[in-house]
Amino acid sequence: MYVLITYDVATGDADGARRLRRVSKLCTQYGQRVQRSVFECLVDPAQFELLKRELGEIIDERKDSLLFYNLGKNWKPRVERLGLNRVYDPEGILLI
Amino acid sequence: MYVLITYDVATGDADGARRLRRVSKLCTQYGQRVQRSVFECLVDPAQFELLKRELGEIIDERKDSLLFYNLGKNWKPRVERLGLNRVYDPEGILLI
Repeated sequence: MYVLITYDVATGDADGARRLRRVSKLCTQYGQRVQRSVFECLVDPAQFELLKRELGEIIDERKDSLLFYNLGKNWKPRVERLGLNRVYDPEGILLI
Repeated sequence: MYVLITYDVATGDADGARRLRRVSKLCTQYGQRVQRSVFECLVDPAQFELLKRELGEIIDERKDSLLFYNLGKNWKPRVERLGLNRVYDPEGILLI
């Protein structure tokens, strides 16, 4: 399954900046950063559950926001890119 | 159709800041901001084409990035939210 993750982490203090780094680092293990706060990940259902649990342990639920959008298996026709984008195919190679 | 729009606009100069304001303003006409640079929009195919064209005219394609994710009609089970989020139902009322 193809999952989009977007996040807003409150970085007004040192602890927020630390959470942001941890969120970025974890998401990088599962997918590819396509914008500053947007990751595209190709995961199986078990990995997705694990990722959500791990992210939930990092963020401050009173301050930070995480959104998950599951685009399923037939995701390619669902995505369009405009402007400066890395053309990323999580099932294939990275095209610049 | 339910469309997610995410954007990174290069705001290093005054022109970038102006583009960002214009992108935000336009997206607000079609949907609801759910994170700093993420909008959820409920549009028909004609509106979606118009929105993409209008956004394409605002951004600097060499500097800015826009991503569109079409979650279709059966979008509700595809979305999960963690942390500080407005619970937004574009087909219903806004729940805080």
